[in-house]
Amino acid sequence: MSDSQAQITRHAGRLADQLRDVRIETAYTRHAEGSVLIRMGDTHVLCNASVLERVPPFLKGKEQGWVTAEYGMLPRSTHTRSDREAARGKQSGRTQEIQRLIGRSLRAVFDLSALGERTLHIDCDVLQADGGTRCASITGAWIAAALAVKHLQKNGTLTTQPLVQSLAAVSVGLVQGSPVLDLDYIEDSGCGADMNIVMTGAGQFVEVQGTAEGQTFDRATFNQLLDLADKGIRELMVLQQQAVDCA
Amino acid sequence: MSDSQAQITRHAGRLADQLRDVRIETAYTRHAEGSVLIRMGDTHVLCNASVLERVPPFLKGKEQGWVTAEYGMLPRSTHTRSDREAARGKQSGRTQEIQRLIGRSLRAVFDLSALGERTLHIDCDVLQADGGTRCASITGAWIAAALAVKHLQKNGTLTTQPLVQSLAAVSVGLVQGSPVLDLDYIEDSGCGADMNIVMTGAGQFVEVQGTAEGQTFDRATFNQLLDLADKGIRELMVLQQQAVDCA
Amino acid sequence: MSDSQAQITRHAGRLADQLRDVRIETAYTRHAEGSVLIRMGDTHVLCNASVLERVPPFLKGKEQGWVTAEYGMLPRSTHTRSDREAARGKQSGRTQEIQRLIGRSLRAVFDLSALGERTLHIDCDVLQADGGTRCASITGAWIAAALAVKHLQKNGTLTTQPLVQSLAAVSVGLVQGSPVLDLDYIEDSGCGADMNIVMTGAGQFVEVQGTAEGQTFDRATFNQLLDLADKGIRELMVLQQQAVDCA
Amino acid sequence: MSDSQAQITRHAGRLADQLRDVRIETAYTRHAEGSVLIRMGDTHVLCNASVLERVPPFLKGKEQGWVTAEYGMLPRSTHTRSDREAARGKQSGRTQEIQRLIGRSLRAVFDLSALGERTLHIDCDVLQADGGTRCASITGAWIAAALAVKHLQKNGTLTTQPLVQSLAAVSVGLVQGSPVLDLDYIEDSGCGADMNIVMTGAGQFVEVQGTAEGQTFDRATFNQLLDLADKGIRELMVLQQQAVDCA
Amino acid sequence: MSDSQAQITRHAGRLADQLRDVRIETAYTRHAEGSVLIRMGDTHVLCNASVLERVPPFLKGKEQGWVTAEYGMLPRSTHTRSDREAARGKQSGRTQEIQRLIGRSLRAVFDLSALGERTLHIDCDVLQADGGTRCASITGAWIAAALAVKHLQKNGTLTTQPLVQSLAAVSVGLVQGSPVLDLDYIEDSGCGADMNIVMTGAGQFVEVQGTAEGQTFDRATFNQLLDLADKGIRELMVLQQQAVDCA
Amino acid sequence: MSDSQAQITRHAGRLADQLRDVRIETAYTRHAEGSVLIRMGDTHVLCNASVLERVPPFLKGKEQGWVTAEYGMLPRSTHTRSDREAARGKQSGRTQEIQRLIGRSLRAVFDLSALGERTLHIDCDVLQADGGTRCASITGAWIAAALAVKHLQKNGTLTTQPLVQSLAAVSVGLVQGSPVLDLDYIEDSGCGADMNIVMTGAGQFVEVQGTAEGQTFDRATFNQLLDLADKGIRELMVLQQQAVDCA
Repeated sequence: MSDSQAQITRHAGRLADQLRDVRIETAYTRHAEGSVLIRMGDTHVLCNASVLERVPPFLKGKEQGWVTAEYGMLPRSTHTRSDREAARGKQSGRTQEIQRLIGRSLRAVFDLSALGERTLHIDCDVLQADGGTRCASITGAWIAAALAVKHLQKNGTLTTQPLVQSLAAVSVGLVQGSPVLDLDYIEDSGCGADMNIVMTGAGQFVEVQGTAEGQTFDRATFNQLLDLADKGIRELMVLQQQAVDCA
Repeated sequence: MSDSQAQITRHAGRLADQLRDVRIETAYTRHAEGSVLIRMGDTHVLCNASVLERVPPFLKGKEQGWVTAEYGMLPRSTHTRSDREAARGKQSGRTQEIQRLIGRSLRAVFDLSALGERTLHIDCDVLQADGGTRCASITGAWIAAALAVKHLQKNGTLTTQPLVQSLAAVSVGLVQGSPVLDLDYIEDSGCGADMNIVMTGAGQFVEVQGTAEGQTFDRATFNQLLDLADKGIRELMVLQQQAVDCA
Repeated sequence: MSDSQAQITRHAGRLADQLRDVRIETAYTRHAEGSVLIRMGDTHVLCNASVLERVPPFLKGKEQGWVTAEYGMLPRSTHTRSDREAARGKQSGRTQEIQRLIGRSLRAVFDLSALGERTLHIDCDVLQADGGTRCASITGAWIAAALAVKHLQKNGTLTTQPLVQSLAAVSVGLVQGSPVLDLDYIEDSGCGADMNIVMTGAGQFVEVQGTAEGQTFDRATFNQLLDLADKGIRELMVLQQQAVDCA
Repeated sequence: MSDSQAQITRHAGRLADQLRDVRIETAYTRHAEGSVLIRMGDTHVLCNASVLERVPPFLKGKEQGWVTAEYGMLPRSTHTRSDREAARGKQSGRTQEIQRLIGRSLRAVFDLSALGERTLHIDCDVLQADGGTRCASITGAWIAAALAVKHLQKNGTLTTQPLVQSLAAVSVGLVQGSPVLDLDYIEDSGCGADMNIVMTGAGQFVEVQGTAEGQTFDRATFNQLLDLADKGIRELMVLQQQAVDCA
Repeated sequence: MSDSQAQITRHAGRLADQLRDVRIETAYTRHAEGSVLIRMGDTHVLCNASVLERVPPFLKGKEQGWVTAEYGMLPRSTHTRSDREAARGKQSGRTQEIQRLIGRSLRAVFDLSALGERTLHIDCDVLQADGGTRCASITGAWIAAALAVKHLQKNGTLTTQPLVQSLAAVSVGLVQGSPVLDLDYIEDSGCGADMNIVMTGAGQFVEVQGTAEGQTFDRATFNQLLDLADKGIRELMVLQQQAVDCA
Repeated sequence: MSDSQAQITRHAGRLADQLRDVRIETAYTRHAEGSVLIRMGDTHVLCNASVLERVPPFLKGKEQGWVTAEYGMLPRSTHTRSDREAARGKQSGRTQEIQRLIGRSLRAVFDLSALGERTLHIDCDVLQADGGTRCASITGAWIAAALAVKHLQKNGTLTTQPLVQSLAAVSVGLVQGSPVLDLDYIEDSGCGADMNIVMTGAGQFVEVQGTAEGQTFDRATFNQLLDLADKGIRELMVLQQQAVDCA
C-alpha cells in the first residue's frame, strides 16, 4: 500500500487501511453451545453455533462430521425495512449465496473426521447492517464454532481438535478509485469494485470473491486490494483469539 | 390472591405474583424509527417499529393508517435449535397466530385515522426464549410503537396522537395447581393451564387467551388468574412509560 | 343475565341468550368412521373423523394415540367468493389458527393412552358460512369423534373409552354494547368484542379466546359473556348427546 | 349396443347401459349465484357458480367474459383419507387436469361476448366420491352456470343468453372386457379402459378422453363406448333441464 | 379421407395427410442410458431416458418396475419467452397434464414385471416448439426408452424384453373445417378442434384426447380424424424402429 | 506458467494451459433474438437471448435498460439424474448463485442507457454437463447478447451500441497440486482449489471467484492461476468474435 492511498479521506474519518471498531461479545445468548455478537462498527451479527448429534443423510455412516451455516437479516436491520424471508416463503438468492459461502469457508479449516458424527450448525443473524455483513458473519462464525468446540472438549465429548486453523474475512474495494479496507454501507453503495476475502491464520486464501460493480480492475489494483485484506484479516485474528481465550 | 398462593415455591425463587426482572433498552438498533430490546428474565425480544409511508391495498384512499406486526424466533433462541422458517419456506401456524395477535392487540389502542395514511410495521424477533415470548413481544411492541410515534411527532410529520392508550401483556397459569404470574419456560412446559392476557392502561381487556393444557379450569380459578395478570400488567406499564419518557 | 339484556332486539329476532336453530345430521358421508353435518342456522360444517392406524413421528413408540384436526372453507361458502387455499398454495394464518384450536380442544377431553397407537383425524369443512364457523366446527368435531370411537368399539378394535368428557363451543359478543349468544355473520361483523368459549360437560373451561374489536371490555362484562356461553354450551351438549345416541 | 352387452351383470345390479341414480338439488347453498348438489349414486359433488364483475388480466378491455372452474375433493370424500391439498401447499396434477377440463368444456357452450365483462367462476367440490367425479362435476357445473345466468337475467344484469347449448359428461369403460356406462369406483378401479365423454345437446363432441389402463382398445370397441356415452348424456340432459326449469 | 380433403392447401405446403419432416438423432447427449433428439419440423424435443435402480415407495417390494416421465419447455423454445417454471416455483397445470400423459402412455406398452425393480425416468425437454410438443415427446420418449432397454440388455442387466409393443403419437385437427394431420403452431392456434392420438404398433388406441376449441365435432368427423392419425402413426413407427435398430 | 506445469499429464491428454475443444453454433434455435449452442468439450450450453420491451419495476421511467440471466441444467445433463427444479418447486442455491453471476457479469460490459427501456433476458440451459458450466454459460451468453444486439441494430430498433466490451469466462484450478486451465468434471471433482474468472477484452477483471476445496492457496499460486485464465480467455474471445461476425 502506498502512502498516498493510506491518506485518502474516508467519510467516517478512517484511514484507507483501517478496520472499523470491532467489539466481540461472547455468550451473548445462553442456549447455543457457542454464541457471539460481533460488531464491526454499525454492523452487528449474532452468531450462534449449535451442536447437533447427527449428520446430513449424505454423510450417514461415513465417520465424519459436518459444518454448515445459515444466514438471515432481521427485516429492520437495514436502512429501510426489507421483507421477512419467512413471510415471503423463500430465501433470496443473495441469502443462499452468503450462507453457502460461510459454510464452505468454515469447512476449509475443519478436520471433519476429528469432529465425529455430529454437525456444527452456525446461525448468523444480522441484527443491524452497515455493510460487510457476510464478512462479519464469517469472522463471528469462526468464533462461535471455536467456542462450541471448546464446550465439547470441556464436557469431555471431544478429545480431538477438529478446528485446525483460524479463519477470518474482510471486504476491500475501490472507493473513488482508491483501495480501502472494510467498507461500510455508504462506501459499499458507491464503490466501483468490491471484494470479499477469506483467509486462514497461515495467510492462505480460502475464498476470493471480487466483483466489478461499474468499474473493472486490473492486476495491479487487485494486488493492492489483496494486501489490504491481508492486513485487516491479521488484525481480526488477534481479536478472535482473545475472545475465544477469555470465554 | 390468597396468602397461601403467594407463598408457593417457584423453581426460580419468585413469588406467585412476581414478574421476572424486566429490562428495557431503547434505541437498541439505529435504523428503526422505534427500537427496543425487552428482556423479561431470560426471554429477550427485539422489537423494531418501522414507519412505512403507504397502507395495504384494502385501505387505499380510506384516509387512515395501519398497524401490523411480524414475529420470528432466531433458530437458536431456544433450548434446542429449531428450523429456520425462511429455509423451510413457510411460517408455522404458531408464528402466524402470534403475529396476528400482536397486530390485533396494538390496533386496539391506536386511532388509525389520527395516524394518517401510513403503516407502523412492528417486527418482534426473539433473540433468546425462556417462555412468554408473545407477551413480551406485545409489551415491547407497544414501546417501539410509542417511540416511532414520538419520532414522527418530533420531526413534525405527525401533529396528532394516534396512540390513545397504553397496552401490555403477561402470561399467567396453573403450576402444580396454583396460579402464578409470568411463567418461564420450565413453568410453562409443566403447567396445567396457561393464559395470555392483554390489557389497556384503563384496566380493560383487549385479548384473553386461555388454554387448558391437560387441566381444565373453573370460573373461580379463572378469576384468580385474571387478578394476577391485572397486577403484573400494571407493573409493566410503569416500566413502559419510563422507557418511553427517557428515550 | 339481567332482564334488560335478554330483551334486546336482534336482527334475526332471537333473544340475547338464544342459540340459532341447530340441526345435526349424522352419517352425512359414508366413508368416514364418524361423519356429521352440523348446522347452526346458516352456518353448515361437515365434520368427518377418520381413524388412521398410525401416529405422528413424535409419538412413535410412546403407546398413545393422537387427535388432530384440519379446517377449510369452500370458496363460495361465504358471501363473496374467497380464494381456494389449495390454489393459492398455502393455508391462511386464520385457517391454521382455527385448526390448531379445534385439535387442541378435542385433545383436552381425550385420554390418548386409551386410544391406542392410532390417530383420529378430523376434517371440518365449511359448506356454508354465516358466522361462528370455528365454534360449530368444534361442536361438530366432538360428535364426529364420538361416532368414530363408537365405531371402533362396535367392531371390537377398542375396548376402552378414550373420550372422557363432552365438549362444545359457542361464540358470545357485544352487539351494540349488549352481550349476546351465538353471533351470526351480521352480528359478528358489527360487534365490538367477540369471544369463543370451549367448555366441557362438567362446566370447566377448555379455551377462552376473547378479542376486543374496537371495544375493550371490563371484568363485569366479561362475566356476563361467560354466563351466556355457559348457558349455550349446556344446550348444545344435550343435542350432541342425542345425535350420538341415535346414530 | 348388442343385447349380450346390455345383459352383463354389474356388481351393483345395473344394466350395462344404465346410469346410476341421479339426484339434483338446486340452491344447496345460499350465497352462490348458482348452487347445486349433484348426486350420481354415491358420488356427490357440490357445484357453486360465482359471478365476479371482473375478467382475468389477459381479457381486460376485450369486451368479453370468462368462464373458469376449480375442483377439489374433501379429504375424507374417499375410501381412505387423502391429504388436504391446501395443507400440502399445492394442487395435484390430477386436480389441475380435471379443473382445466371442466373450464374448457363449459367455455365450449358459452358465448363469452354475450356474457359481458364478467367471470363465471365455478367451484366443484366433491363431498363424497364413488367414481366419475370429473363427469359429475361437468354435468353439475353446467347446471350451476345455467342457474347463475338465470339469476343475472332475472335481476336485469343480463339481457342476452350467453349459454348457447346444453352440456353433460359421462364416463364409459371396459369392465371385464364389456363396455359399460357410468362406472362407479369398484368398476373404475378394475376396468381395462376408461373414457370420459363430454357432449352438447346437439350430440356433438366437446371432449373425448380415452385411456387404456392395461387394455388397449380397437376402433369397434371405441364406437361401442361412444354409443353408450351418447345414450347416457341424453338422459342426463333431461334431468339437467328439469332442474334448471324448476329452480 | 376423401380426395377433396387431401387436397386442401396448408400454409406450409403440406398435404392434409402429410407429416412434417421427421429427424431422429440418437445418442444426442452422452450420460443418459437412452438419448434422442426428435425433430418434427420445427418442434425439437430432447428425450433422455435414465435408469434408476429403485422404484417409487408405493412399489417397494412388489417385484416390478416403473416408467415415468417429466416434461418441460425451455423458456425461449416458444415464439415469445415464457416464465421458467423452476423460477416461478411450480409446474403449470399444462405441464403436469402432459407429463402424466407421457408416463401413462409408455406404461401401456411396458411389462413392468419384466423390467425388474428399477425405474425408467424419461425427461422430455422441448428445445424449440412449433406445435405438437406432447406428441413428439411421446414418440421420442418411446425411442429413448427402447434405447435404454437395449443398453440394459447389452450390459447384461436385463435378459427379458419389458418393452412389449411400439408406441407413437400424433396430433390431428380441423383447420378451416378440414381434417389435417400433424398440426404446426400456426395451424394449432387457428384450429377448431384438436386431437392427440396415441396408438400401439398393433393399431390399438392407448390414448385419445380430443378437444373442441370453438368447434364441436360429430362422429363422422371424428372418424376422419382417427383415420388420419392412424396413417401418421404407422409412418412414425417405421422411423422409430430404424432409429432404434441403427443406434 | 513454468514449463514443468505446462507439461503435467491431464487425464484427457490436454496440456495444463490448453482449453477444451470449443464449438460455437449460432442460430441454434429459431425464436430467440440471439441463440447459440456453445460446446466446451462435453459441456454443452444453449444460450438464448430474448429481447423484452419492458424493464423490471425498479427501473420504470429511469431511461435505461436491463440485462439479466437465468440458468438451468436439464435433469439428465449430468452423470446421474438430478431432480428437476421445476418439479421440486424451487431453484437450488447453486442455481441462483450462478444466474446472479451471469447477469452481473454481462451488465459490467453493457451501457444500459444505450440499450433503451428494454430487457435482454438470457437463458442458459445446460444440455450436457462436464464441468465448467457457469463459465461456458457466461461465454455463450455474451455471444447470444451480441447477436440480439445485432438483430436490434439490423431491424433499426437500436442505433446505438450498448455492448461496450467483450467478455468471457474460464475456470482454472489446482489438480494434483498443479495449476491447470478449463477443468472438466473429473478434474473439478478431484481438484484442491477452483477458480472462475470473468474478464473483459481489455484484460480487466469483472469477477474473480476462487474457492479452496480442501486446499487453501497462497499468493504465488493465485497469480499462476490468474495467468492461465488470462491466456484462456483471450483465446475464447477470438472464437466469440468470429461467431458473432459470421452470424
